[in-house]
Amino acid sequence: MNEHVIKKTWLDQAKQLTPELHQQKVYPERMVNVVQDEGAFQGWSIEPVGSAARVYDQILKKGDCITLDFGTHHVGYVTLSLRNVRSNADAPLRLRLTFGEMPCEVGEDFSEYKGWLSRSWLQDEIINVDVLPGTITLDRRYAFRYLKIDVFETSIRYDVQLTDLYCTTVTSADLAAVPPLRAGIDPEMANIDRVAVQTLRDCMQTVFEDGPKRDRRLWIGDLRLQALVNYETFGCNDLVKRCLYLFAGSRLEDGRVGACLYEYPEPYVDETYLYDYALLFVATLYDYYEATGDRNTLEELWPVAYEQIHIALARLNEQGIVQDDDTWYCFLDWHDELNKQAGAQAVLIYSMRRGLKIAHELDLVDQEAWMNVQIERAVNAALAYLWDEEQKYFISGKERQVSWASQVWMILAEVIDGPIASALLERLEHHTNAVGMTTPYMVHHYVDALLLCGKKEKALEQIRTYWGGMLRDGADTFWELYNPDDKTYSPYGSNLVNSYCHAWSCTPSYFIRRYLYKDTE
Amino acid sequence: MNEHVIKKTWLDQAKQLTPELHQQKVYPERMVNVVQDEGAFQGWSIEPVGSAARVYDQILKKGDCITLDFGTHHVGYVTLSLRNVRSNADAPLRLRLTFGEMPCEVGEDFSEYKGWLSRSWLQDEIINVDVLPGTITLDRRYAFRYLKIDVFETSIRYDVQLTDLYCTTVTSADLAAVPPLRAGIDPEMANIDRVAVQTLRDCMQTVFEDGPKRDRRLWIGDLRLQALVNYETFGCNDLVKRCLYLFAGSRLEDGRVGACLYEYPEPYVDETYLYDYALLFVATLYDYYEATGDRNTLEELWPVAYEQIHIALARLNEQGIVQDDDTWYCFLDWHDELNKQAGAQAVLIYSMRRGLKIAHELDLVDQEAWMNVQIERAVNAALAYLWDEEQKYFISGKERQVSWASQVWMILAEVIDGPIASALLERLEHHTNAVGMTTPYMVHHYVDALLLCGKKEKALEQIRTYWGGMLRDGADTFWELYNPDDKTYSPYGSNLVNSYCHAWSCTPSYFIRRYLYKDTE
Repeated sequence: MNEHVIKKTWLDQAKQLTPELHQQKVYPERMVNVVQDEGAFQGWSIEPVGSAARVYDQILKKGDCITLDFGTHHVGYVTLSLRNVRSNADAPLRLRLTFGEMPCEVGEDFSEYKGWLSRSWLQDEIINVDVLPGTITLDRRYAFRYLKIDVFETSIRYDVQLTDLYCTTVTSADLAAVPPLRAGIDPEMANIDRVAVQTLRDCMQTVFEDGPKRDRRLWIGDLRLQALVNYETFGCNDLVKRCLYLFAGSRLEDGRVGACLYEYPEPYVDETYLYDYALLFVATLYDYYEATGDRNTLEELWPVAYEQIHIALARLNEQGIVQDDDTWYCFLDWHDELNKQAGAQAVLIYSMRRGLKIAHELDLVDQEAWMNVQIERAVNAALAYLWDEEQKYFISGKERQVSWASQVWMILAEVIDGPIASALLERLEHHTNAVGMTTPYMVHHYVDALLLCGKKEKALEQIRTYWGGMLRDGADTFWELYNPDDKTYSPYGSNLVNSYCHAWSCTPSYFIRRYLYKDTE
Repeated sequence: MNEHVIKKTWLDQAKQLTPELHQQKVYPERMVNVVQDEGAFQGWSIEPVGSAARVYDQILKKGDCITLDFGTHHVGYVTLSLRNVRSNADAPLRLRLTFGEMPCEVGEDFSEYKGWLSRSWLQDEIINVDVLPGTITLDRRYAFRYLKIDVFETSIRYDVQLTDLYCTTVTSADLAAVPPLRAGIDPEMANIDRVAVQTLRDCMQTVFEDGPKRDRRLWIGDLRLQALVNYETFGCNDLVKRCLYLFAGSRLEDGRVGACLYEYPEPYVDETYLYDYALLFVATLYDYYEATGDRNTLEELWPVAYEQIHIALARLNEQGIVQDDDTWYCFLDWHDELNKQAGAQAVLIYSMRRGLKIAHELDLVDQEAWMNVQIERAVNAALAYLWDEEQKYFISGKERQVSWASQVWMILAEVIDGPIASALLERLEHHTNAVGMTTPYMVHHYVDALLLCGKKEKALEQIRTYWGGMLRDGADTFWELYNPDDKTYSPYGSNLVNSYCHAWSCTPSYFIRRYLYKDTE
């Protein structure tokens, strides 16, 4: 079969694996006011106004605005039933519906949005209703806990009243499939696990989305972490398989695995290539095999993974280290100042180590031998050119930058290990100007590194501080971004457009269930 | 059968008579700019920008705005196909679509609307499109010639291009069924007839709507005129029958026929009762029988018509004239200063004369005799108390107001006739402060009165002046309101909300085809 036919076959396989979505009707739990409050997270707090029954008692006049609280984060389709009161609906009803994952989204005025991602990500609709009484189901899917309804227009003759309002939630995850936590786990950790599982649930649709509000794409970096949590919770392993086939079946030119995919109108790859993300396809495939033992898929997709390693190695310079530049060639974390060179080198090594295990598993003796050579060269180059013996830190780029990302990934890549790695992590805490971490994605890798160094208590502490911090700040699902020192931080210029239910933030459940509270311990 | 069961049966009959809608795809004919122009109708003129092909060549960026001209007035459902260009659509597309029957609607800013009808009648939508390339069919029906598209949001990565755009028009009228005009009719009149027929076509849906933009209801006053034009053109006589049964089957308390009906979610009557409109049910039933010879319907609905006469007679005071008051008890015309007393009296007489003919046709000897008595009394009272022998005009109300409406309706009611009526109409033209006419509805009755007085040339002149004036001012369909001396006149505080395709304005075709250019003449 030629390349084109193989890709088509893989996309067909992915299509076959499209999961059915579970649906559930959920109703608002109460009416609330969103009020400015300097002491509250991002400056907005929620005040209860009335019970769910109040929602249906309320007469809504032109100019009125109510905010409904659905109790927690949901993803789905909204249906409203409305009736006219006082007299006949002799003109259309015009409403604005604003959906918010967080209070800021129903508190702030979208017309003042200044972010540099499209304002179209903010979830608001203006709807005109010609027939009352009537029932409207909006076509679009929303991710939200709060729904604000502004009554823009009625007529002088009538007001309206809600007679029904619900969200038909959708997810390919089944909460009933999640194994119970070990008895006796402390309540805070149990709560963190619950929210992490809910985060993953809301991101699990017909692919593992990065965020059900924004940007709803399938990204390799998110997929890898979602898959790890999924193996410990929902066990929707065919969804991981589907996503692997989607990436394999829709690559960029020269065989590169793209950083992300769009699902509609037909799955297609975005033009973005990221050095680390393409390599993490290898790790994701390895994890999938480890979780499922599905050797067919491993055999079929290994050539794609193997090719990513070749493509990545081509970027090494004559010293054997990743060629650095000023473009956005590698992700690692959202940090304007972070130099990616050392991290990229480490992800290469990390992924080759998993590639080596696959080659071994598949009895590909020549490839195994070749990989061993490549790993040794890359590790030696890292130690020779990226380790600063004087400072005792890995450095990155021509400015010899010290960052958390570089240290963490070098440890995950096992370039150093044992007491040396442990000591590095301890030293790092006291480094006064190392470039820090901004996303849960990066913090995940830090926790992973702590566990690799046997620092279980420190890992627990980090989860309690970071994800526990989100909980204390009101998270129903974990967030794309959380900077405890700057709670309105956004890499996009506005916290309104941050995703507050984000795939890469769901990993506490992986740590808790796989390493920290195992029954066998 | 009791009252309730009868009404239910009538509504069921009306349902059976629901017509199928003919559909046709129509496409934009060109791109235009709407520009301010003091010399143009209402201050807006249309400048061509490009051909239909240009519509699909145009790259639309964030902030762009284009206006498409569909060539003439249409009623239907709009479908757009769009594709992303430059790169992937990595964020939703947010558009505003503004539909205009007239240039003012796509020229002016709706946010500055100051009318006192609901702003929700203005036809604009904000839509968010999640998937590109994609096709969107909007749920709502629009009445428009112009479509303005504002590109509110794309993303930094993509622009868009229209790949298809059309309106699926709907109407229960079939243009192919309209008899050709007599050969040799002058082009201006032929043009007026064409536009009148198109006006009726766009108002003919599953009922005779008053206006397909606003307010889309079935009003008796409009129905009566639409039916008269329909008999001469489309011949959809079952649609008239359906509307008569809807009014009969959904009356107000005490058996009163309401002024208007809503069709959805299920047909129901509005609480508005208008003295003249309820009486015109009698005339409409009579006209229907005259056109169709459908005696079953006449027999079945006559009791409803007869009851309207009884109800109307109950409003006569001890002098035998309609009790006047300050409420909106009678329509006649949109004119704040118009006193309705004389006109109401005349409509009562006009309707009783038709009731008399029905009673005679149905051999209801007692009712016929009774009606003769009532007509005589009402005519005598009109002549005794509403005719001012000194001024030689009919007067109305305690201020003894002289209006065109009063004179016209008294003639139509045959309270006076022959040379006396003719002379009155001639005098009226020279009256310096008689309350004038503001709607095509009232002008229709004036033309009708001219014809009744044998003033065919004058009738033609009036049609040429008034409806011809609309044509010269750019009408594709005839308007709800036209005041040649104040072209932005609106009884609703804004010309944006006037209906520019309005049932009661379609009657030139009735006059032209029935009286003015008959083959038999």
